[in-house]
This record gives sequence, C-alpha cells and structure tokens, in this order.
Amino acid sequence: MPTAEEQHKTDSTNLLLFVALLLLTIFTIWIFKHKRVRFIHETGLAIVYGLIIGIILKYTSHPEAANTLNVNSTNATCQQESTCPGLQFSNPELRQVTFNPELFFNILLPPIIFHAGYSLKKRHFFRNIGSILTFAFVGTLVSAIVIAAICYGFVSAMMLYNVDPSFNFGFVDCLLFGAIVSATDPVTVLAVFKELKVDVNLDALLFGESVLNDAVAIILVKAIQTYQKAGSSEFDSAAFFSSLGEFIGVFLGSFAIGGTTAIITALIFKFTKLGQHPVLETSVFFLMSWSCFLLAEAVGFTGIVAVLFCGVLQAHYTYNNLSAESKIRTKQLFELLNFLAENFIFSYMGVSMFTFSHHHFNAIFIVGAFIALFVSRACNIYPLSFLLNLGRKHKIPFNIQHMMMFAGLRGAVAFALAIRETCYEEQQMIFTTTLLIVFVTVWVLGGGTTQMLTWLKIKVDVDPDAATAVGENLPHVNNGYQLCPSSPQLIVSSMLGMVCVSLYATLFPI
Amino acid sequence: MPTAEEQHKTDSTNLLLFVALLLLTIFTIWIFKHKRVRFIHETGLAIVYGLIIGIILKYTSHPEAANTLNVNSTNATCQQESTCPGLQFSNPELRQVTFNPELFFNILLPPIIFHAGYSLKKRHFFRNIGSILTFAFVGTLVSAIVIAAICYGFVSAMMLYNVDPSFNFGFVDCLLFGAIVSATDPVTVLAVFKELKVDVNLDALLFGESVLNDAVAIILVKAIQTYQKAGSSEFDSAAFFSSLGEFIGVFLGSFAIGGTTAIITALIFKFTKLGQHPVLETSVFFLMSWSCFLLAEAVGFTGIVAVLFCGVLQAHYTYNNLSAESKIRTKQLFELLNFLAENFIFSYMGVSMFTFSHHHFNAIFIVGAFIALFVSRACNIYPLSFLLNLGRKHKIPFNIQHMMMFAGLRGAVAFALAIRETCYEEQQMIFTTTLLIVFVTVWVLGGGTTQMLTWLKIKVDVDPDAATAVGENLPHVNNGYQLCPSSPQLIVSSMLGMVCVSLYATLFPI
Repeated sequence: MPTAEEQHKTDSTNLLLFVALLLLTIFTIWIFKHKRVRFIHETGLAIVYGLIIGIILKYTSHPEAANTLNVNSTNATCQQESTCPGLQFSNPELRQVTFNPELFFNILLPPIIFHAGYSLKKRHFFRNIGSILTFAFVGTLVSAIVIAAICYGFVSAMMLYNVDPSFNFGFVDCLLFGAIVSATDPVTVLAVFKELKVDVNLDALLFGESVLNDAVAIILVKAIQTYQKAGSSEFDSAAFFSSLGEFIGVFLGSFAIGGTTAIITALIFKFTKLGQHPVLETSVFFLMSWSCFLLAEAVGFTGIVAVLFCGVLQAHYTYNNLSAESKIRTKQLFELLNFLAENFIFSYMGVSMFTFSHHHFNAIFIVGAFIALFVSRACNIYPLSFLLNLGRKHKIPFNIQHMMMFAGLRGAVAFALAIRETCYEEQQMIFTTTLLIVFVTVWVLGGGTTQMLTWLKIKVDVDPDAATAVGENLPHVNNGYQLCPSSPQLIVSSMLGMVCVSLYATLFPI
Repeated sequence: MPTAEEQHKTDSTNLLLFVALLLLTIFTIWIFKHKRVRFIHETGLAIVYGLIIGIILKYTSHPEAANTLNVNSTNATCQQESTCPGLQFSNPELRQVTFNPELFFNILLPPIIFHAGYSLKKRHFFRNIGSILTFAFVGTLVSAIVIAAICYGFVSAMMLYNVDPSFNFGFVDCLLFGAIVSATDPVTVLAVFKELKVDVNLDALLFGESVLNDAVAIILVKAIQTYQKAGSSEFDSAAFFSSLGEFIGVFLGSFAIGGTTAIITALIFKFTKLGQHPVLETSVFFLMSWSCFLLAEAVGFTGIVAVLFCGVLQAHYTYNNLSAESKIRTKQLFELLNFLAENFIFSYMGVSMFTFSHHHFNAIFIVGAFIALFVSRACNIYPLSFLLNLGRKHKIPFNIQHMMMFAGLRGAVAFALAIRETCYEEQQMIFTTTLLIVFVTVWVLGGGTTQMLTWLKIKVDVDPDAATAVGENLPHVNNGYQLCPSSPQLIVSSMLGMVCVSLYATLFPI
C-alpha cells in the first residue's frame, strides 16, 4: 500500500504522461499540417502514440510500483463491484494508468458533444433535417439490430463448438454491442471535408447524422442495460416495454432539460446587459450549459443528450444575443476544450489497449463484428437513401451514398459507452472489440477519405453559399423537401411541443 | 451503502449545487456592478451564498441519504488515514458535499496562481522588485514567526488552565498555523484598486507581495510538515536543518522547473510557425504550463510555485512570441479559469463552514489568532518599510504603509493549505480558525477598502503611465532604487543563474 505522498507523485506522473502525449500529438499534427499530409488525422495519431506509450508502460512498469490514478480508485461504475472481485482494475498490479470511466463520460465527453451542437452549420443542417433525423433515428436502430443479429449468428456458431462452456453471450448482449458500436464519429472524415471544402450538404448529412445518432445510441444502451438488469436473458415483454418507455422518456426528458436551459440562457442574455462584462457572460454561458448536463444526470436522464440539444439551441438562440466579444470567446473556449478532450480520449484508447488487463480477444467475434459493421452500415444507408429519395426533390446521388457508407467511423462515444461497464467477461469482450473497431475505422477509413473522394468523383472546393442541395446544383433552391418540409420555425415549434411533453414525462416518470 | 447509480446522482446533484451557487454569485456581482456597489466583492458574496447553502444543507439533509462527492472518496491526503478512524469525512453522515482537498490544491489553485503570474504588470513589478522580494520573503517569515509566537503564548496560557489534557498544541503547530495564514490574498482590495485606478506602484507592491508570499508560505508549510513528521515536538536541530534545506531546495527546484518550461515554450513559439494554428498554439501553451505543475509535483517539489514562476516568465517571454489571436485567447482563457476557480473556492469555503463536521472552535485561540494577525502584519510592514526607505529614493509614504497594513486579507491559498490535513484535532483547529480569518478579513477589510483609501487620502484615478514611484510623483524618474538596482535584464540573468543552481538541486536532491 503506497503512502499518500507516493500515491500523489504517481498520479502526477501519470497525468504528466498524458499531457506529454498530447503535446507530442500536437507537434506531429502541426508538422503534418505544415507538410499537408492527409493520410492520417490527429485522432489516428493520438491512438498511435497512445499505443506506443502503452507498450512501453506494459513492459517497463513493476507490478509493485504500479498504481492507479486517483480518479480511478472510486470505481462507482462497476455496479456489481462486490460481486465481481479481482476483476477490472481491482488488483494492484492492474491498476496502471487507468482512469475512472466516469471521467470520460462526465468530464471529457460533454465538451465534445456540446461543441458538436454549438458548431453546427444551422442552415445546411435544417435544410437536410428530415434526412438527418431519418438516418439518426431509423438508421441507428437498424444498425444496432443488424449488428446484433449478425453477431448473434457468430456467437451461436461459436457456442456450437462449445469453446467455453461458462461463457454466456446472449442476444441482449449482442444488442448491447450493436447499440454501442452504432454511435458513429466521423471526426476524421469531417476534418478532411472541411479542409477540402467538400459539398456542404454531404457535410451536413454526415455531421448531423453522427451528432444525433450519438444521442440515440447512448439512450439505446441505457435502455438495454435497464432491460438486462430487469430480467433474464430470455425475452421478457414487460421489461421490453419498460425499456421502450424509458427510451422515449429519457430522450424527451433530456431534450427538455437541454432545451429549457438554452432558452433560459438566451432570455437572460437578451433581457440583461450582462454583455458589458464578457467574463461574467462567458462564465454564465459555460455554467448554464454544464448545469443542464448535471441536472439531466441528477434526475436520471442522459446528460450527453441534454448537452447536445443545449448546444444546438445555444447556437440557434443564445449566440445571437451574446456580445461580440463573447461570441468569439465562447467559440474559442469550446473549440479548445473539444480539441483537448478529443485528443485525450484517443490517446487514452491507445494506452488502454495495453494497460487494461482484462482484454478478451475472440477472433470469431471480432471477425463477425467487422462483417456486421459493414453489412449494418449498408442496411442503414442504401435503403434509407432510397426511401428518402422517393420524397426528396434533390436526390441523394449514389456517390454521396457510397461516401456516407464509407464514413462509418467509430470513436469517442462508442469507446466511452464500452468502457463504462467492464466487470463481466461479456462486457470485456465488447470493450476489446469496440476498441479494435475504433482503431481500424479511424486508421483505414479516416486515412482513405481523400482517396475515396477522388474515386467517387465528389466535388471539392465548393463555395458553401453556392451549394444548395445534396449532389447537384439544381436551380430549384429553397423549395424545401417534400418528405420533411421543415423550416427552422417548424422545428422550433415542434421542439417546444416536445419540451412540454417531456416536462410532463419528467414530472411523472415512467 | 448506496448503489453506483444513486452515488452518481448524488454527485451530480452536489456539483449542480455548486454550479447554481456560482451562477447566483455571478448574477449578484452583475447587479452590484450595475449599481456600482463597492462595499462587498464577489468573493465575499460567494462566501455569503456558500454559508446560506451550507446552513440549508446541514438542516435539511438526512444522514442516511448523505453522500460525498466522488472525488472525496479517495482521501489520499490524510496520511494517517488508517490511524485516524472515524475522523474527517469518513462517517457516512459527515460525507456531505465535500471535495477531496487535493482538488483545491491540484486543480483549482494552479489556474489562479498562473493567472496571477501571467497578468503581472511587468513594468511596475520590476521597478519595485527589491521591495516586493523583501516583503514577500522576509515579511512572510517575520509574519509566520510572530503569529506562531503570539499563538503559542495564548495556547500556553490555555494549557495552564488545562482545558483539555489530551490536547497537545505545540510550538511547531503554532508555526504551521503561522505559515498557513501568512499567505495573503488581497484579491478584493486589488479589484477595488483596479476599478478606482489607484497609484500603480501601490498596486504593484501589494500584488507582487501577495503573489510571491504564497510561494513562500506554501514551501514554509511543506518544510514545517517535513519537520513535524521527522521528529518529536521538541526542537531537533537535524530535522530543522533538513527542513531548511528542503525549503531552499524546493524553492529553487520549483523555480527551475517553472522557468525551464516557460523558456522552452517561448523558444518553441519563436522558432516555429505554430501561430498559424491558434488552437494548437493555445493548447501547447496551456499544456506546457500545466505540465510544469505536474512535473514539479511528480518529482516532489511544489507545483504551485513552479506554475507561478512559469506564469511570470510566460508573460515575459512567451507572450511576445504568440500570434495576435493567441495573445487574446490565452489571456481570456486564464481570466475565465481564474474567475471560475476563485469563486468556486470562496463558495466552497462558505459551504464547508457548516458541512465539515469536525470544526474545532476554540475561542481563546481564535482571539489570539486575530491579535497575532494584526501584530504580525504591523511587524512585517512598518519595520520593513522603514528599512526599505533607507535605501529607496522614492520613499514608501506612511499612507501607503497604512494601506498595505490594512490590505492583509487571507484567501484561497490559506484555505487550501489548511484543508489539506484535517485528521488531528490540532489540524482541525487550524482549519476552523483559518476559515474564520478568511471570512472576517474578506468581509471587513475587503469591504472597507474604498473608505480606507479616502481616509488615507490615497490618490485615485491615476494614469498608470504618469505614475512613477510609490506615493509621490517626484521628478527623478527611472533612476531605479539604490537598495535594489534591479533592471529586468539583471533579474533575468540572476534567474538563469538560479535555474542552473536549482537544476543541480533537482539532480542531487537534499
């Protein structure tokens, strides 16, 4: 048992390691930007450096000197902590450079998600809102179910040969895995898009989908875990409907909290002269946005979803009521927080590949997962695009569909969801496989973006104001889309309606 | 034992409480700024709101529902944790809304201290460097010793009447208390100065003293604690010299780490074109500054001191090599972090008055402490000013001396030092008394600043560029001060010398 002072020194050293890792990543990014290297993105790099540091740590640290970072010692997330002895990081020699998973979920993810919402290009987002909502809601559900089905097939085949009799990976576990890896995160692709000035509507479709499907995936995972805790692995219709109810309740509740917070903030800035003191203004902005996350978590909803909608609405309403200085300040602040948090998470992923001691590699499951990933993405993009094209005036052309198919990267959200529960062998297998999926998709798909754009003959260097609809620049602008004729006003009024509904849901939880 | 989910909800609620408290403080500050109220500063307000919430929490929360914030559960600072059962926050009903003291020291204090260094008005600081160093080093030592002597007198008198036979408060404890409350923090006074544009040299003297004496007090406390751990409460010359050596070693080591980090950062920005990417530049700036803190803590020096000198040198060297955008970004970022951290600490002080369950109020000691505070400040300011005036061409006039005497507020650093160790009764008594001292000085002295400036006939609305020396605007400008003829160049060269010395000390620790 190390003394408090030794503990403190180890903690500082570990944190210093990550700071150094971030610095290293930043310098390499800078050199790459300087030399216009595009085959690897900063997040891909962060993983590579993380892996290197992870290997070094694994083979140089002494078990007796190994320690955990302070934040890990209270592993509040392992619900079955007392029933899961010796697992996870509880052995001293395993407690190497590990953080509390709550840290990812509660501290590092909110700024990333808020920034995604806050930096949304409203105009193009709302123009494509119908398609985005379809891809995000229907698409994520389809993706989760297809992945679950394919993986269940592989797991069943595995069971036939009875690899490990104690190993029990049911359909609900498969569904959980499906939900976890359905959260796409094409941060690498979007960075390339931004640099090459790709068609803004493709950008809006992908970005919008990835932002909203995080919310769907998070709540889906929550609902499945509720279902798991409620009953056996057999199908239980009561638990299923309770989970379904929770899915809807949590979504509406989180949405209401995020929306209400943003509207209150906007009203405060509109009707006071707080803008005379930019520090106060920025602080209020930051604290209000954070408080919606905390409030949602405190009442049992999902903070991430609340903070996402808060970000979208802050950008829509509050931003215009900010003083000129605070407009820049808030943008820059969240840009910085997002950058640091994102690179930290990706380096940590690399490190945890080697320092997490309960990896559970299962070749059949991993192969199955990759096949499932590919098939589910295809089942998501092509049929939905076909259906959407029936209603859209400006069709989504095939090259855009292929690009969306290609851009199914997984990232921070999938990782954070997978690391939250790693007590049981099934959860560990999910974690390991998710980690591998993130690495491969970030490197391979992220690295191939520029090449793919060329192959698919997607226009680059597009002036955002000239482009109007996905794919082609047809003359019929501003007519909206028949399937979803959603103007911002319509969205807002429907949002307010949902706020009322979900306030009701908050007061009378299901 | 609450489940992980309940725990998480309680944590979120507690944190939400503090965010709400900060928002409340900000709105009140804004109203006060709007109405030009100057009798109470934001930090004073934060304490008041904290106290109110503390009372509410104390009388409304149920012991069985009471929980601690996640960060507290690993109380790594209580070195004698195993030998101090049931104390501090270890009873479930006492674990209310309490944070790990390390949080204050490692997360909240660094941005405040860095900001102090970074926002230093160099010109006026270096003009008065001789006086500032004298007040900071000699003054703080004098202050700590005088406080210790007076308190020891009171404690001895108390012992005569044998209030509690088990209670053993020795001279070293008194010295520890003296060192803790010698860290002045005239944040309230300086805010008023800034608003009223008081003589810049008075401002520089007070600000410089308060910044540097934090460093001295922190290292003094560290050295005394080393001494305490080494031996008995009797005087032990070996332990004394070891502590003295540690004091010097830690100071030089921390100084070297802070200085080296700043110089490396400056060189990076000077010789690369990182400024083309402001996010990268600001990230590097932030991470480098933080890494010096972590490095210092990891090798056993004092991160706060390292980060202070890092801030001073970053402002001196790195700032001028930053891109125009990053100049503003870094200033704004640290301004915001400082504002949030400061107000958080002061609200927490208010809350902890009622939620910390091991307060040890001792009326005699408290009265003694206040007398000691007053006497020690007088023993610090007047004799040192007299000595400095022997050498200064531009004397420090009496009204400025009185103002400095008056501005002996205590704040965040004293609190953070006191809360670090609260296992034993003596430490609890120190903590309680320090808390009261902070409250009284912030409210009474902070609130009376404007009045005191009027009484002492200190000029306000002074143009910073016109004012040259303390007190009077004499014609002999730019002659420097005979006692300490320190130009910036001289300072820098001596600093570099010290860097070499302390690198030596780092490599061969005492």
